[in-house]
Amino acid sequence: MTLLILYIIGIVSEAMTGSLSAGKRKMDWFGVILIASITSLGGGTIRDILLNHYPLTWVKHPYFLILTCLAGICATQIPNWITKNNKLFLTLDAIGLITFTIIGFQIALEIGCSPLICIVSGLITGVFGGLMRDILTQNPPIVLYRELYASVSILTSGIYLFLINTKLNHDLVIIISFFSGLIIRLLAIKFNLNLPTFSIKEINGNSKFKDK
Amino acid sequence: MTLLILYIIGIVSEAMTGSLSAGKRKMDWFGVILIASITSLGGGTIRDILLNHYPLTWVKHPYFLILTCLAGICATQIPNWITKNNKLFLTLDAIGLITFTIIGFQIALEIGCSPLICIVSGLITGVFGGLMRDILTQNPPIVLYRELYASVSILTSGIYLFLINTKLNHDLVIIISFFSGLIIRLLAIKFNLNLPTFSIKEINGNSKFKDK
Amino acid sequence: MTLLILYIIGIVSEAMTGSLSAGKRKMDWFGVILIASITSLGGGTIRDILLNHYPLTWVKHPYFLILTCLAGICATQIPNWITKNNKLFLTLDAIGLITFTIIGFQIALEIGCSPLICIVSGLITGVFGGLMRDILTQNPPIVLYRELYASVSILTSGIYLFLINTKLNHDLVIIISFFSGLIIRLLAIKFNLNLPTFSIKEINGNSKFKDK
Repeated sequence: MTLLILYIIGIVSEAMTGSLSAGKRKMDWFGVILIASITSLGGGTIRDILLNHYPLTWVKHPYFLILTCLAGICATQIPNWITKNNKLFLTLDAIGLITFTIIGFQIALEIGCSPLICIVSGLITGVFGGLMRDILTQNPPIVLYRELYASVSILTSGIYLFLINTKLNHDLVIIISFFSGLIIRLLAIKFNLNLPTFSIKEINGNSKFKDK
Repeated sequence: MTLLILYIIGIVSEAMTGSLSAGKRKMDWFGVILIASITSLGGGTIRDILLNHYPLTWVKHPYFLILTCLAGICATQIPNWITKNNKLFLTLDAIGLITFTIIGFQIALEIGCSPLICIVSGLITGVFGGLMRDILTQNPPIVLYRELYASVSILTSGIYLFLINTKLNHDLVIIISFFSGLIIRLLAIKFNLNLPTFSIKEINGNSKFKDK
Repeated sequence: MTLLILYIIGIVSEAMTGSLSAGKRKMDWFGVILIASITSLGGGTIRDILLNHYPLTWVKHPYFLILTCLAGICATQIPNWITKNNKLFLTLDAIGLITFTIIGFQIALEIGCSPLICIVSGLITGVFGGLMRDILTQNPPIVLYRELYASVSILTSGIYLFLINTKLNHDLVIIISFFSGLIIRLLAIKFNLNLPTFSIKEINGNSKFKDK
């Protein structure tokens, strides 16, 4: 199954991004493995908890967990190679995002969720792993600030949703959605496209929410 | 149903507080929508996960999710108006807190939980949305630091618990609990009442927990 | 049951560590109680959610929740005594870690999980409470950075897993695993053993992930 191969590419590259974030924070090996696993499997885990879809993928198939641990440790050995091949990794990460989105959409659809919840399910699968990585490594969650990332997930789901209502073969639907989403994401990276941000000035000089 | 109207007021005002927090952090539109949704629906979601109460409200009724997204986007257009009408929003937020508390209490009661867990359920519904908002926007969780906020939720639950054991009509129980809780909260805001805080000095100059 | 007594020692000492963290952040009493409860009961809660193992311990037995609240409040009265008796508390915390690990392992085993997931279940029960404490009090999660902490949980699970496959009496298996784990942990504290850390330099002076 093509989707399985893409899924494995996705979790491996996500695990490596998690490992690098942990390395920037000088975590020990356990921290690296934990952040790697949460980055790659966390999105699907949150989705399954929210949709009451048990058992969780990695509980049922622990070899996915072993794979993310290995990928995380592996990345600690080749940080310079990864940083030099940043574009390759952005592409692998994009493959992960689109694959996670399609898988999340399909699972919600199988459970019988409404189209909006299917889109949300794809989105959560795609972006929540990175969100938890950023919180655990005490960085601002990048997905909330910039780059057309979450929007690509939503667009991919929209294309998928449109196509499954046509009479196209299901495999073809997946292929078209996958490549459409991937191209949009790669264009967003290439041209550095961002969503407009919403910024308000603090009224009082020292914000009352600020920690001292 | 009065409770539904109050619930809608609650999620709309909570979504707006989430949107403003996201704006202070210069998040993009997706960040704003996500923070708005988590702030208003997050407390109930955590409660339902902890109590194994599925499907989640917003999975079953996606229009609540649409409403919070709209409220979040709407708030980005009128930040100054909201800041000027701070007292109105504190009142709406208080309505949300009390309504969420009563709904959380009722759900736990229906499931057959013990009184203590019903109080905890009301509390989680009332305060965990704001807690997650503050973590995702990297602010100190305000509910843990000051203002009689969580305590008002517990007091409201206590009043509700007392009244359902009397022979009063159930609608009347809700109304009395609601207004009692609301008045306590508004008095706490007006007189700036806080719980005593617990503060210990660091023994060693550089705390071992501190990040460098 | 010996395990119950050890479990109570564990949750009480974990609650106290949570309470002290909250005190360092000058939280109010509600913050103290919440952090204390999450620190001591959070690991088991996350485990039960991931394994779909309901009802949660503290929902079924609310007196555990009362106990953590009392321990948390109690710790606010004796912070200096606790800080002076740091070694005692490290030992109590070690007892908690090992007990939580064995309980988490057993629950996953009873549900029919594979050995790897049983180890992960023990690990989550043992370390995720402290992880959430650190996130909520805005400290770097200590378990990800140093000290042989998570590894001791994994080693304890490994010993337990090995022993249950021998013909030893089950109580004896628990006792041997418990003391082996405890001794390893206390040696790690005494000799300040850490896992190797993984540290990468930022390529670009201003990291793009940094918050300003």
